[in-house]
Amino acid sequence: MTAPRRAPRYTGVRTFAGLPHAPLASALGDASASPAGGLGGTDPAGGRAALAVVGVPFDTATSWRAGARFGPEAIRSASVLLRPWHPLHGVEVFGPGAIANASAVVDAGDVAITPGNAQRSVEQIAQALSALGSVGITALALGGDHLVALGELRAHASLHGPLALVLFDAHADTWDDYYGERLFHGTVIRRAVEEELIDPARSLIAGIRGSLYAPSDLDDARALGLELVQIDELRATPPGAFAARVRDRVGGWPAFLGFDIDAVDPSAAPATGTPEVGGLLAGEALAFVRELTGIRFVGYDVVEVSPPYDAPGQITSLLAASVAYEMLALAALGRLGLG
Amino acid sequence: MTAPRRAPRYTGVRTFAGLPHAPLASALGDASASPAGGLGGTDPAGGRAALAVVGVPFDTATSWRAGARFGPEAIRSASVLLRPWHPLHGVEVFGPGAIANASAVVDAGDVAITPGNAQRSVEQIAQALSALGSVGITALALGGDHLVALGELRAHASLHGPLALVLFDAHADTWDDYYGERLFHGTVIRRAVEEELIDPARSLIAGIRGSLYAPSDLDDARALGLELVQIDELRATPPGAFAARVRDRVGGWPAFLGFDIDAVDPSAAPATGTPEVGGLLAGEALAFVRELTGIRFVGYDVVEVSPPYDAPGQITSLLAASVAYEMLALAALGRLGLG
Amino acid sequence: MTAPRRAPRYTGVRTFAGLPHAPLASALGDASASPAGGLGGTDPAGGRAALAVVGVPFDTATSWRAGARFGPEAIRSASVLLRPWHPLHGVEVFGPGAIANASAVVDAGDVAITPGNAQRSVEQIAQALSALGSVGITALALGGDHLVALGELRAHASLHGPLALVLFDAHADTWDDYYGERLFHGTVIRRAVEEELIDPARSLIAGIRGSLYAPSDLDDARALGLELVQIDELRATPPGAFAARVRDRVGGWPAFLGFDIDAVDPSAAPATGTPEVGGLLAGEALAFVRELTGIRFVGYDVVEVSPPYDAPGQITSLLAASVAYEMLALAALGRLGLG
Amino acid sequence: MTAPRRAPRYTGVRTFAGLPHAPLASALGDASASPAGGLGGTDPAGGRAALAVVGVPFDTATSWRAGARFGPEAIRSASVLLRPWHPLHGVEVFGPGAIANASAVVDAGDVAITPGNAQRSVEQIAQALSALGSVGITALALGGDHLVALGELRAHASLHGPLALVLFDAHADTWDDYYGERLFHGTVIRRAVEEELIDPARSLIAGIRGSLYAPSDLDDARALGLELVQIDELRATPPGAFAARVRDRVGGWPAFLGFDIDAVDPSAAPATGTPEVGGLLAGEALAFVRELTGIRFVGYDVVEVSPPYDAPGQITSLLAASVAYEMLALAALGRLGLG
Amino acid sequence: MTAPRRAPRYTGVRTFAGLPHAPLASALGDASASPAGGLGGTDPAGGRAALAVVGVPFDTATSWRAGARFGPEAIRSASVLLRPWHPLHGVEVFGPGAIANASAVVDAGDVAITPGNAQRSVEQIAQALSALGSVGITALALGGDHLVALGELRAHASLHGPLALVLFDAHADTWDDYYGERLFHGTVIRRAVEEELIDPARSLIAGIRGSLYAPSDLDDARALGLELVQIDELRATPPGAFAARVRDRVGGWPAFLGFDIDAVDPSAAPATGTPEVGGLLAGEALAFVRELTGIRFVGYDVVEVSPPYDAPGQITSLLAASVAYEMLALAALGRLGLG
Amino acid sequence: MTAPRRAPRYTGVRTFAGLPHAPLASALGDASASPAGGLGGTDPAGGRAALAVVGVPFDTATSWRAGARFGPEAIRSASVLLRPWHPLHGVEVFGPGAIANASAVVDAGDVAITPGNAQRSVEQIAQALSALGSVGITALALGGDHLVALGELRAHASLHGPLALVLFDAHADTWDDYYGERLFHGTVIRRAVEEELIDPARSLIAGIRGSLYAPSDLDDARALGLELVQIDELRATPPGAFAARVRDRVGGWPAFLGFDIDAVDPSAAPATGTPEVGGLLAGEALAFVRELTGIRFVGYDVVEVSPPYDAPGQITSLLAASVAYEMLALAALGRLGLG
Repeated sequence: MTAPRRAPRYTGVRTFAGLPHAPLASALGDASASPAGGLGGTDPAGGRAALAVVGVPFDTATSWRAGARFGPEAIRSASVLLRPWHPLHGVEVFGPGAIANASAVVDAGDVAITPGNAQRSVEQIAQALSALGSVGITALALGGDHLVALGELRAHASLHGPLALVLFDAHADTWDDYYGERLFHGTVIRRAVEEELIDPARSLIAGIRGSLYAPSDLDDARALGLELVQIDELRATPPGAFAARVRDRVGGWPAFLGFDIDAVDPSAAPATGTPEVGGLLAGEALAFVRELTGIRFVGYDVVEVSPPYDAPGQITSLLAASVAYEMLALAALGRLGLG
Repeated sequence: MTAPRRAPRYTGVRTFAGLPHAPLASALGDASASPAGGLGGTDPAGGRAALAVVGVPFDTATSWRAGARFGPEAIRSASVLLRPWHPLHGVEVFGPGAIANASAVVDAGDVAITPGNAQRSVEQIAQALSALGSVGITALALGGDHLVALGELRAHASLHGPLALVLFDAHADTWDDYYGERLFHGTVIRRAVEEELIDPARSLIAGIRGSLYAPSDLDDARALGLELVQIDELRATPPGAFAARVRDRVGGWPAFLGFDIDAVDPSAAPATGTPEVGGLLAGEALAFVRELTGIRFVGYDVVEVSPPYDAPGQITSLLAASVAYEMLALAALGRLGLG
Repeated sequence: MTAPRRAPRYTGVRTFAGLPHAPLASALGDASASPAGGLGGTDPAGGRAALAVVGVPFDTATSWRAGARFGPEAIRSASVLLRPWHPLHGVEVFGPGAIANASAVVDAGDVAITPGNAQRSVEQIAQALSALGSVGITALALGGDHLVALGELRAHASLHGPLALVLFDAHADTWDDYYGERLFHGTVIRRAVEEELIDPARSLIAGIRGSLYAPSDLDDARALGLELVQIDELRATPPGAFAARVRDRVGGWPAFLGFDIDAVDPSAAPATGTPEVGGLLAGEALAFVRELTGIRFVGYDVVEVSPPYDAPGQITSLLAASVAYEMLALAALGRLGLG
Repeated sequence: MTAPRRAPRYTGVRTFAGLPHAPLASALGDASASPAGGLGGTDPAGGRAALAVVGVPFDTATSWRAGARFGPEAIRSASVLLRPWHPLHGVEVFGPGAIANASAVVDAGDVAITPGNAQRSVEQIAQALSALGSVGITALALGGDHLVALGELRAHASLHGPLALVLFDAHADTWDDYYGERLFHGTVIRRAVEEELIDPARSLIAGIRGSLYAPSDLDDARALGLELVQIDELRATPPGAFAARVRDRVGGWPAFLGFDIDAVDPSAAPATGTPEVGGLLAGEALAFVRELTGIRFVGYDVVEVSPPYDAPGQITSLLAASVAYEMLALAALGRLGLG
Repeated sequence: MTAPRRAPRYTGVRTFAGLPHAPLASALGDASASPAGGLGGTDPAGGRAALAVVGVPFDTATSWRAGARFGPEAIRSASVLLRPWHPLHGVEVFGPGAIANASAVVDAGDVAITPGNAQRSVEQIAQALSALGSVGITALALGGDHLVALGELRAHASLHGPLALVLFDAHADTWDDYYGERLFHGTVIRRAVEEELIDPARSLIAGIRGSLYAPSDLDDARALGLELVQIDELRATPPGAFAARVRDRVGGWPAFLGFDIDAVDPSAAPATGTPEVGGLLAGEALAFVRELTGIRFVGYDVVEVSPPYDAPGQITSLLAASVAYEMLALAALGRLGLG
Repeated sequence: MTAPRRAPRYTGVRTFAGLPHAPLASALGDASASPAGGLGGTDPAGGRAALAVVGVPFDTATSWRAGARFGPEAIRSASVLLRPWHPLHGVEVFGPGAIANASAVVDAGDVAITPGNAQRSVEQIAQALSALGSVGITALALGGDHLVALGELRAHASLHGPLALVLFDAHADTWDDYYGERLFHGTVIRRAVEEELIDPARSLIAGIRGSLYAPSDLDDARALGLELVQIDELRATPPGAFAARVRDRVGGWPAFLGFDIDAVDPSAAPATGTPEVGGLLAGEALAFVRELTGIRFVGYDVVEVSPPYDAPGQITSLLAASVAYEMLALAALGRLGLG
C-alpha cells in the first residue's frame, strides 16, 4: 500500500472519499466566502478545483419513501472505502495524478435547500451549481430525490445550452403533476424538457421497467422525443455497445449523466424511494457507467438513495458511492484527454 | 377469552384495533359517498359513529427525520394488539359496550393529503375533519408530523371556537418560520395561536426539554400565553395531580388533546422525527393521559411516529397505539357520562 | 400520470394494490354476509368480482423460521407500489380495463385460520376458497407457509378435479412427515398427490436446489410422477422456452400456479422460512412467471414470505407483490381471451 | 481478572454462560445415553450436576409474534457475558464455589419438541424434565413460548405435588381456549390449575397490565384462586417487601419461579411475543427476582423471548440471560443453605 | 427560531453539532499544519479555540463487541440535533455567547490511531491531546473503546499532574491483563493508577453493577484506592447530592470526567461493547453529569458507543451526543466563571 | 425425510451443521485433553475424525468494519440448514456415508485467540491446526478476518511444505504493512509468500476488483508470482473451465482453498469487513467452489463474515455456511477417492 492517508479510512470527518473539504459557502449567499477562493484554496498547487462533489439533501418531492435527505451523509460515509486509482481505466481518479491543468477534486459540502419548498430549493440548487460552473468547476451531485436534477440542469443549461441527457432510471419521470404539484420527483424530466434544459432528441433513459398507471406513462415520454431503453434490452446489450449507442445519440453535445439508484435491482439497492423489482445487477450498473467514455459530460448526479432503508449492510450507499466513483473516473479521463 | 373476532388478531386488512372500516370518502371530495352514510352505515345498530380514528400520512413539514407518512400504517399494525376492555377505567373502549346514544368507534381511513404542499394539506385535513365534526363525529388523528395538528385545530375551532390545548411534547413548536417556511412542524403552535384556534390562556404543553437555539425559543412560547411544563417538573408530579392542574387550566372549555410521541424518551420511542433524550417513560406516558378525565375533549391526535426507525421491535408504534387507546378510553368515559 | 387514486399510494388502509376491500365474511361462517353479495357489491358496474386476492396468515407448519403469518400484511404494504397497466403484456391488470364479462379484482381480506392446528386450518382454507370458487371467483392466495397450498388445492380440485401443478420452489416438499406431523410445509406436495388434488403427470416443480437428507428426498418426488427442474437447468432455459415446456406438460389441463418465494436467491428474497442459496434472480423470477400465458390457471399463490427477516428494505415483500402482479396479469389476459 | 476461560467469551460453541455441555440425550429417548451419566459426567469432581439449564425451542402456541423457537439460541449467545460471581448475594453462581454436595451447573442442551403439535411437545418437555428431576437435577428452562411451562409443571408436580407458582407476567394466561385450541400460550395457567400442577392459593402472578377482552379475563383468574398483582402495585412495592409477600403466599411450599419476559416494558424487552406497554424497567426486573430468597424453588423458566425482533442490540436476550442468572443465584444460595 | 445555520441541520459534512472543523493535523505529525494556527484560525474573532471535540476511532481493545471505531462518526451524526443554548444552566454552550477570553469550541476531527496496535495508539492519542493542551485547548474525546482514556490521561497528567477521575461506568476496569494483554479496555483504570495519571484518593467510579469473575474484581479496585458507587446507591442519590459528594472527593483538584456509555441501561444505550443490564436511565445520566458544576475539569470523554448495534433508531449515539453536550455546558460555565 | 436428528434443526447447542462437538482442547494447551482422544472419541465407530470444522473468532486485523469475531457463531447458526447429502456430487458430505477409512466430520469448536495481539493469535492458530494436522485431521476454518489464514498456512506448510493457494477474494492482500502493522488482513498473502508457506507459481487469486491506492497494489502481487483473475474474467469463465485452469496451475501440489466472502457481491454478502461492489453472485460462488474437484486440498477456510451487518436476513452467514458445505463436499469426494 502506498499510504495516502495519515490514518485508517474510518478516521476523520466524512468527506466524499476523504477528499479535501471546500465548503460551497459563497454559492449559498455568504458574502464572506468566494467559491473561487474557497474551492481553489484546497489545491496544494494553488490552482482551482476542476470538479466538486456536492450533496443535495432534499427529499420533499418523493411519492413513496422519504429519507433521501440523508443520502449525501450516507454516501459520503460509504465512499471512504474508495481509493484513488482506477485499474480498469488506468487513471488516478482523484489525488495528484488526477490533475490536468493544475486542477483537483474536492468535496464542496452540501447545497442549502429549503425542506417543504420544492420551488425555492430547485432555485437554490441552480444558483449554487451555476456559481461553481461559472468558475469552471464541474459538479457531481449526490441526492436527494430526483427533483434535485432540475436545479442541476438549470445551472448546466444556463452555461452550456440544452444538454444531452444520459439517464439510468427505472422510471421516465415525465408525469405532468403529482396531485397538483408540478415539481415532483416523477415530473422532473418533463419539466427539464419544457424548460428546454435538455434536448430530447439527444437524450436517452435506460433501465425502464415496472407497472404503469397507463400506456401514456411511457408514450408521453416518447412523444416528448426521449429515447427509452427497457431493462431487458439494456441488460442484453454489452456495456461497450450501449456506450456506442449513447455516443451516437448524444452526438458530441454537452451532456449530463444521471443515475437514479432505482435503476438497480432492489437486491443490490434496497434503500431507495420507489424500488422496482427486476433492475440492473450491481456489477452491470458499474459497467454501463464505466464504458461511457468519449462524451463531454458537464455534470453528473446519483440520486434517490434513502439511507433509513439501508441498515445494517449499507449496500445501497456503497453502490451509489461506487457509481459516483465511475463518474469521477470519466471526468478524470476527460480532463486528461483520455476519454 | 371471550372471542371477539373470528380469527387471530394478525388476520385481515389492518384497521385500527380491528375496528370497522368506514372510509372517509366524502370528506375527500368523492361525490358518491357521504360521511354520515358511510360512517353511520358501519354501526350494526343503524346509528352513526361517535368517534373515528383517522390517519394523516403527511410528513413534508419535518426538520430532521421524515417517515411519519407511514405512521398511520404502522400504528394500525401494532394496534391490533389492543383489546376492548380497559380494566383501570372499567369501560369498554370500543365494541357494543362503548356505545352511548347508539354510537360506535370506527376507522375512517386516511385523509387525502398532498405531499410537498403543506398549505393545501392542512386545508385538506381541516375539511375532512370538519365534515366529520359537522355530523357529530369526534376525530382521533394518527400523524403524520406535528403540522397536521393545524388542520385538525382549524376543523375543531370552526365548530367549537378557540380550544384549550393540552399537549405532550418535548418542544414548544412556536418558531415563526423554518428557513422561510411558515407551515412547519416546529411552527404549528404559533400558527394555531395566531389563527385563534387555541386559547393560550387555557392551554398547556408538558414534557419540554432539550437544548435550544436561544432562550427566546421558550420565552416566545410563554409570551404567547402558553403554559409550559418542563420534563422534570412533569415527571415529579403524580398523574392525578397533573390532571387536576390541567383541569384547572382548561376550566371546562372544549379542549384538544395532542400527543407528540417525542414527549417520550427515545428508549421507549426511538422512531420519531426529532428525538430528545430524557423524556417520559412509557408507563408514565400512559398514566398521564389516562388520568385526564373530566375534560371535554373535542379532538385528539398522536403524531410524529416515523416507522422506518422503529424496526424490528416496533415499540414506538405500539406505544403510539396504546396512547391512542387511552384517548379512546377518555372518549368512551365521556360518552357514557363517566369521565 | 393518470391519477387513479385520490391521494398518494401510502394513504389509506392497506389492501392489495389499493384494490377494493370485499371481506370474505361468509366463507368464514358469518351468516350475516354472503360472498356473492359481499364480493359482488364491490364492482361499480354491479357485477361480481372475477378474482380475489386473499391472505392466509398461517405459519404453524414451518421447519425453520416462522413469521409468515405476517406475510399477507407485508405483501399488501409493498403492493401499493403496483400500478394497473402491464406494459409488456399491454393489459390492464386491475381497474376498469381489466374487466371481461363485467368482472373485477378485489382484496377479499384473510382466511380465518387456527394457529397451532394445521388440520383445521387447511380445512378452513379449503372451505373459504371453495366458497369463492363456487361463485366463479378465482383466488390468488398470499401465504403463509407452504402448507396453505393444501387447503387451496382441496378447494380447486373439488371444483375442477385433479390439477396440473406449476410450482416454483427450491424444495420438492414431498417428505412423508416431519417429526410425526403429516401436515407440514415440507410434506404439502406429497399430501396433494395422495389426496389426488394434483395430477403429477401434468405437474412440474422448478427451481430445485440445495443439500438433501438423502437421495430419496428427490427420488421420492420423481417416483410420485412429478417432474423436477433443477435450478441450473431452469436458469439456462429462456423464459419463453420454459413456458412452452410447461404448456406441454400441463396439456390444457386446469392448472394451479404456485410460487414459493424461496425459489428466489436469498439476496433478493432474504425473508423466507427456509432460504436456500443459489436461486433465481428477481428479474428471472418475474420473467418465468410472466411468460406462462396460454395456461388455464384456476388458482394462484405466493407463499413463505416471513416479514420479520425483511427489514428495513422489505425487498422480499416487494418481490412477492410483483410476482403476484404477474399472476394477476396472466389472469387478466385469460379473462380477456388474450393469454 | 481471574481468567476462568482459556479464551475470550465470544470463543467456542455457545452454551449458557459457557457452562459445560451435558446433552439431555437420554431424556429424549436415546437409549445410548443416560441423564445421570451424561449430566454427571461433566462434573470434574465426578459428581452429578445439581442444576441444568435447558432450552425449549417451541413457539407453536403464540397468538401474535412467533420466533421464540430461537429464544434458547439467542439467550445462550447473550449469556456468555455473565460471570460466575454474584457480588450482591456474595455467592458463586456457577463454577467450583457454586457447588454444595459436589454438584455443578451445566447446559443440558434443548428438549426435543414437535413443532406444530402442542400436545406432544408438552409431553416431551414433561418427560425430559422428569428424567432430570428423578436424578435430583433442578431445571432452569429457556423458552420458547409460555406454553412450555405446562410441560415443566407436569414434570415438577409429578415429583413434588402441586406447586406454588411465582410468576412475572403481563398477562394472567387463564383463557380457556384460543380459537378452539386448549393448549396455547394464553391458556397455560388455567391448564396448570385444572391439572392440579399448581396450588392457586399459594400462587401469585405479578406485572399484570394492559387492555382486556372483557373483565372476565382477570376475574376468571381470580376465581381460580390466583393472586394477581397489577403492574402499578408491583412497581410501588420495594423488592424486599414484595419478596416477603411472596414468601407469605408460598408458605414454605415447593415452588416454581417463572418469568415471562413481557412482564418487562417493551423499551427493555422489545423482542417478545405479545408486548405490552408500561411494564417493569430492566433494573426492577432483576431486583424483584433477586430478592426472592428463602423459597424452595424446584424449577425455573424464562420464556417468550422472540429473537427476530431483537436485532441489532439484542437487549431482550441479554435481559433474559440476566434474569436467568438471578435465578441461578437463588439456586446457588439454596444449595449452599444461604437463601 | 434564531436561524443559526444557513440550511437544515442535516445539511453539510458532519462535524460535532455543526461546529467549525479545525483538523488536528499538526498533532498527527503533519509538518504543514500547526494546532495553534489550524485551531485558532477557526475563530472569526481571530482567537484560539478554548475547547476541541476530537474523535478517537479505536476499538482494538474490546472484550466483547467491537465497532466503537465508528463511534465518532455516529455521535457526530446524531449531534447535529444539538442547539447552542442550554436552558437549565442558562448558558450558550457553543457559538458567540460561549466565548470567554475570545475562545470558541471546534471539532478538531479525529486522532490518527493504529488499529491492531494498542500501545502505539495510546501514544498517538497522548501526543495529539498534549499538543492541544499545550496551547490551552481542552479536549472532549469521543471514543472509541475505553482504552483511549489512557492516552487522554497521559496527555492531561503531563500538563496537570495526577488527576481526580470522575467516571461513570458499569465496570471498574481494573483488571491486570486480558489474556496477557495489558492495554485493554478492562485494564485502563489500573494502568492509569499505576502510571500515576490519576490520584485514586480523589477519584470515583459510579454506576458499578453486574456479575463478576471473582470478588477481587471490585476489591482490587478498592485496594487501589478508588471509590466505587454501586448503581443502586447512585440511582438512590439525587443528582445534586451526588455532585456534592464528587466535589468533596475531588477537593478542588484538576479533574477528568469520563462517561462509559455502558453506565446507562441497555434499553437506552443498546449499542455498546459490553452492555450490562440495570443501568442508569437516559434522563438520569444527563442529570448526573449536568450537576457536576464547580469542578475544574481539564478533560472529558464519552466512550464505548458501538454504532453497528444502534440501528435504526440510533438512540445510543444520540444519548452520547447529549452527554457530551452536558460536558460542553460544564466547560462553558467554567470558562464564563459560572460553574 | 430420513430423520437424521431427534428434533428440529433449530434445537440444541449450535455446532456446524449439527455435527458432533469435539472441542479442540489440547491444541489450546489444556493438558487434560488430547486431540486424538477428544476428536476421535466422537466417532461412534471408534475411529478418528477425518475433518474438523474449527472457528477462529479473531478480528483485530481489519481495516474497515470489525465484527468477524462473531463469524463462527453466525455461520454455525445458519449452517444447521445444511443437510448431509450433496445431490450434484452424489456424495454424503457428513454422516456415516461420508466416512472413508473410518473417519468422520466434527465441529472442533474455536481456536483460542488473543484479541488485540495479532502475532500471538496467528501463532495460536498455527499451533492448534498443527495439532490437528499431526494426527491426520484436515481443518476447515471459519473466520475471523483474513489474517487468520496466516496461522492456518503456517500449520499446513509445516506438514506439507509450501502450498498451492487457491483463493477467492476481491483483494490481493499483498500490501506490505498497514500503518506500520505487518500482520493485517490486507497483508496476509504477502506474509505467506515471504514465509514460503505458499508457492506463488502454483497459486491463484480470483475475484479481484475495485479501486486501488496505486497500480502497484496489483503489480506487486503479480511481481510476487501470484496469478490474479479479475472479476470480469472470472465471471466470463464457466466453472468447469475455471476448475481446469486451477488444476493446471496447482499441478498436483498440496493446496489450500480459501474463500474471502468479499469475493461475493454485497447484494449477496453485505456483512463483510471491506465490501466491494460488483462481485460474484451467490450461485456463481457455489458453482466455482463446487467444480474444484481433483485437487489435493489440505486445508480450507471461509473468512471475513461480520455478523453485525447481516441482520435480519443473515444471508451472508448462510452463504458462508453453504460455501463451507461445498468445501466439505470436495473433502468427502477426496476421502472417497471420487474427486
